[in-house]
Amino acid sequence: MNSLRKFIERYQSLSNSDWKMIEHLFKSNSVNKNEFILREGKICRKLYFLEKGLLRYFIDKDGMEVTKFFTIAPYFFTSQVSFNNKTPAKENIQAIEDAIIWEISYEDNNKLLELKSWNQFARKITQEVQFFTEEILEELQSETATDRYIKMLNKQGDLIQRIPQKILASYLGIAPQSLSRIRRKQARS
Amino acid sequence: MNSLRKFIERYQSLSNSDWKMIEHLFKSNSVNKNEFILREGKICRKLYFLEKGLLRYFIDKDGMEVTKFFTIAPYFFTSQVSFNNKTPAKENIQAIEDAIIWEISYEDNNKLLELKSWNQFARKITQEVQFFTEEILEELQSETATDRYIKMLNKQGDLIQRIPQKILASYLGIAPQSLSRIRRKQARS
Repeated sequence: MNSLRKFIERYQSLSNSDWKMIEHLFKSNSVNKNEFILREGKICRKLYFLEKGLLRYFIDKDGMEVTKFFTIAPYFFTSQVSFNNKTPAKENIQAIEDAIIWEISYEDNNKLLELKSWNQFARKITQEVQFFTEEILEELQSETATDRYIKMLNKQGDLIQRIPQKILASYLGIAPQSLSRIRRKQARS
Repeated sequence: MNSLRKFIERYQSLSNSDWKMIEHLFKSNSVNKNEFILREGKICRKLYFLEKGLLRYFIDKDGMEVTKFFTIAPYFFTSQVSFNNKTPAKENIQAIEDAIIWEISYEDNNKLLELKSWNQFARKITQEVQFFTEEILEELQSETATDRYIKMLNKQGDLIQRIPQKILASYLGIAPQSLSRIRRKQARS
């Protein structure tokens, strides 16, 4: 089965006619490692499905990059506020690996929202994204960078291998040197 | 106009028949200051609308309270993962002020999700909550407690007056004494 349909049907069953409409409105692209899907200050005009690859969201804070979170395929993504309100994005979205990305325009997504199935799917995935964001927030509020690193190592060990050290450090909110120290200490214990 | 209807119509227009159904399924209650709407470990069985008052979400981290965020009336709230998956909540919800709260059960909310208007409303408000959560996450990742306090003071000065010092400190991730110091310094400057 098509990977986009398969992903949607994890959340919401689709009739063949609804799927035909969805398939017709999405287009797929290849994106190279390090390429930007969105730059801060631009309006995000698309809703995306990441079929393959890994992305990061980051902001520039006084010349320092802060990585907000990662999107791991297969998953949907966009710069939500920018996409919904047509305002300049406050964040960058960058591919960390070569990626395959499907996209749909704001207007075409609105057409799909007329379908009950798509509306349900959109609500469910937004809820899940909200849950993930809350989880990261809770960790940041209550755990040290070392605790967060160990948790990631246990829960998402293979993901950690795919993220460059500098980017992982900017997600944990520490200097790359501090991350090296934590890694050495973990490897010893 | 009824405050619940007024709130929903900020996001999504309602036909009179849809409103009748919504009104019929919600019940309103009074909650006293300091009362718990939800305790960690319990299943959150309701979706709520806070008509009046102020709430906080908090977790207990090794005996220390960590305040995740606040809900300011009028707004919708629930413990999302617990409510959707019927799993024990990982957080507490407590009234900081006397409150008026409307509630609807999981089953009745599912009935409402059959309405296109309610489904659209649920999707839009979930998106907004996601946006607020991301904003707090971004601040936590890139700003100091002092910066966050000053920002709150400028954007939500009246809210700060309503939150007890100890709770505000547990939201900023600092000791109450450190918050007192920041406040004295701000008052002088």
